[in-house]
Amino acid sequence: VAGRARGTVFFLTDYGLVDEFAGVVRAAVLRVAPGAPIIDLTHGVTPFDVRAGALALVRAAPHLGPGVVLAVVDPEVGTSRRALAVSVARTTETEGPQHFVGPDNGLLPWAVDALGGVECAVALTSPRGGTLDDASAPGATFDGRDLFAPVAGRLWQGSSLTELGAEIDPGSLVRLADPRVSTTSGALAAEVLWVDRFGNVQLAARPADADAAVLGMELEVIAGAVHRAQRVPTFAALEPGTLGLVVDANGHLAVVCDRQSAATVLQVRAGDLITVRSVAPGCVSR
Amino acid sequence: VAGRARGTVFFLTDYGLVDEFAGVVRAAVLRVAPGAPIIDLTHGVTPFDVRAGALALVRAAPHLGPGVVLAVVDPEVGTSRRALAVSVARTTETEGPQHFVGPDNGLLPWAVDALGGVECAVALTSPRGGTLDDASAPGATFDGRDLFAPVAGRLWQGSSLTELGAEIDPGSLVRLADPRVSTTSGALAAEVLWVDRFGNVQLAARPADADAAVLGMELEVIAGAVHRAQRVPTFAALEPGTLGLVVDANGHLAVVCDRQSAATVLQVRAGDLITVRSVAPGCVSR
Amino acid sequence: VAGRARGTVFFLTDYGLVDEFAGVVRAAVLRVAPGAPIIDLTHGVTPFDVRAGALALVRAAPHLGPGVVLAVVDPEVGTSRRALAVSVARTTETEGPQHFVGPDNGLLPWAVDALGGVECAVALTSPRGGTLDDASAPGATFDGRDLFAPVAGRLWQGSSLTELGAEIDPGSLVRLADPRVSTTSGALAAEVLWVDRFGNVQLAARPADADAAVLGMELEVIAGAVHRAQRVPTFAALEPGTLGLVVDANGHLAVVCDRQSAATVLQVRAGDLITVRSVAPGCVSR
Repeated sequence: VAGRARGTVFFLTDYGLVDEFAGVVRAAVLRVAPGAPIIDLTHGVTPFDVRAGALALVRAAPHLGPGVVLAVVDPEVGTSRRALAVSVARTTETEGPQHFVGPDNGLLPWAVDALGGVECAVALTSPRGGTLDDASAPGATFDGRDLFAPVAGRLWQGSSLTELGAEIDPGSLVRLADPRVSTTSGALAAEVLWVDRFGNVQLAARPADADAAVLGMELEVIAGAVHRAQRVPTFAALEPGTLGLVVDANGHLAVVCDRQSAATVLQVRAGDLITVRSVAPGCVSR
Repeated sequence: VAGRARGTVFFLTDYGLVDEFAGVVRAAVLRVAPGAPIIDLTHGVTPFDVRAGALALVRAAPHLGPGVVLAVVDPEVGTSRRALAVSVARTTETEGPQHFVGPDNGLLPWAVDALGGVECAVALTSPRGGTLDDASAPGATFDGRDLFAPVAGRLWQGSSLTELGAEIDPGSLVRLADPRVSTTSGALAAEVLWVDRFGNVQLAARPADADAAVLGMELEVIAGAVHRAQRVPTFAALEPGTLGLVVDANGHLAVVCDRQSAATVLQVRAGDLITVRSVAPGCVSR
Repeated sequence: VAGRARGTVFFLTDYGLVDEFAGVVRAAVLRVAPGAPIIDLTHGVTPFDVRAGALALVRAAPHLGPGVVLAVVDPEVGTSRRALAVSVARTTETEGPQHFVGPDNGLLPWAVDALGGVECAVALTSPRGGTLDDASAPGATFDGRDLFAPVAGRLWQGSSLTELGAEIDPGSLVRLADPRVSTTSGALAAEVLWVDRFGNVQLAARPADADAAVLGMELEVIAGAVHRAQRVPTFAALEPGTLGLVVDANGHLAVVCDRQSAATVLQVRAGDLITVRSVAPGCVSR
């Protein structure tokens, strides 16, 4: 309780909210770190979808204050995959989280990079006294509760990384394939990163990609079928039922539809590749 | 951190809990107001359903302690709709929230009225330095994170309304149409306000409306088809599978069914109009 | 605010997260106990499923720190069923919750037993001044908000049980039927306790039951159809698409399938009875 402010424990998983998994992990953090504020980022990541979890973390990262990020999307739990705690190489003006905790499967690096990169990384030593290869112990399957939560609590309390595991080469962390974007004159092709609750279709592309592709204001979006769309500054600039290309709140290009699901119109989901191209001037009147 | 207790930030949206929206907004509140307790009222409001959000707020309002209500159901985000912070005209004996923050679309006024009415209202100045009409900025579409959360945090910290925007006429706030209720001798017609998880059907009518309609104990509920029902003091007084009219925990009349969904029996949803009428004495034996 | 640390309010219900029920109860706790940290264990218990709620509580119990457990799965709300507050008979070395609050329908005792048993139990006096039989009062149907939350808050504040109700015989608490397990040489039959988000099928049986049944490494799981399975130390030891019998993170036997839903493969759900038996050596090669 005494001491300087330690910030918040930010918590993201694919546990869902129907089972008590997330609740038990919150309790496990508090056993080690009484008084720690715990903020759920989300527990709605699709089960085992490490890429979706990593993308949610990187979207959230710029908006987080000081503290520890505890992230668990961990299809390889119980194997010899490493468990990580990482500190962020921060410049003095940043005020985001100092530490990330989670499995070594690509979940963490994008968000850590967005905040300044990995300063130091350790492979966590199992709290069961052995290594994580010691997977034959009963209960080996809930590292969120038994390993990551106590480590997050200890980091919040002020433990140093080197008390928690053996230092490893930051370059050795597992990394996911970069999101796919490519541009030609008049068109860009981009991976769908995310379809949100409202059906907005976030693309891997950013405004600079639209500039590189010299996209006009009248567009076609090709996702199997071809759909007409317009570049608009905001949802509300769209006619009802029409598609628009906006810069979304994360600085990505997104295909949207005012008060409707663009994803349903386009019939796309995360991971799909779609093309956006300028309509030739002669066709605008169609 | 020092100073008097500032109460709680009560948080309601239509963001759902699958995406990280609500999590990022919680983090954004804490960046401005470290240490603020944040209580989720719900994030399960049907997307864009301002009326459902307003009704949830007004049901919750009498049970909230001191603090700030942050509510975002905002289909017009990015347009020139105003963004509000409002203080509550409270009598000395009340101890509820002092401030409400959210869009000017009818979401807030019912709950504010239930606590004493609007004392002062301001139209928020955009944190982007311009006004909210300045919607062409990238990222203009997440006011929950970029505008409402920081404002809620600053109010929790003790900022005054006039630091946050320009005072406006409380009478100019957008208001939703009143819920529909009408009574005749022997019958009442009322809007369905809410179907809850358990299938209970909350009506806009209150016990005084039942009195005005001189409703008896044996009833018919008309929602397309005609259903028999009884006035009962509690769920448990119902025979299995039968419908009852109760006074619910918000002081509204509600059509319920013990351990079953009355909404499924009646085939109704929020916004429907249903009629409840006394059964003529000669028909009671049917 | 002053005084010793009071721990956490751990909160479990079948309210779901779409309606504002859980949010209003959190607010009601804070009105009585400003500053209390509230941790949601889950609100995703199947509506009215007391057994599922009791099982979630007993799974969570060993991982909770000091504080008060507030649990509400209460199909008989509004009847004369008793409302309880219970203290835990703890040995000095344990550090879990001191108190449990909830309905007297079997929801609490398993978890209390897991922590040391009931030390003292009281039947709560209604905050409406009467007894809980006084169900004719308007709003009698939300005891979570109006009775259990304030009681949990008062216990967190330091109230004694006897301030809150009349002491009752701990032996009189309603208890659920024990989960079903039976063993013979070469086979065990066990109730499915829980199917989690990942489709893992937790059985009432524990490793000692497998020992008693002298289960081998090659198994058949009988749930209507007969399925081959292997005893494995961890998910990752399974071939893709094959079933395994593991000791899960709660110390129960569970039928699992690597990155697939074992429940879907077996077509089972909570409450079903399944049999696990050794394959005769002559059949292993099949």
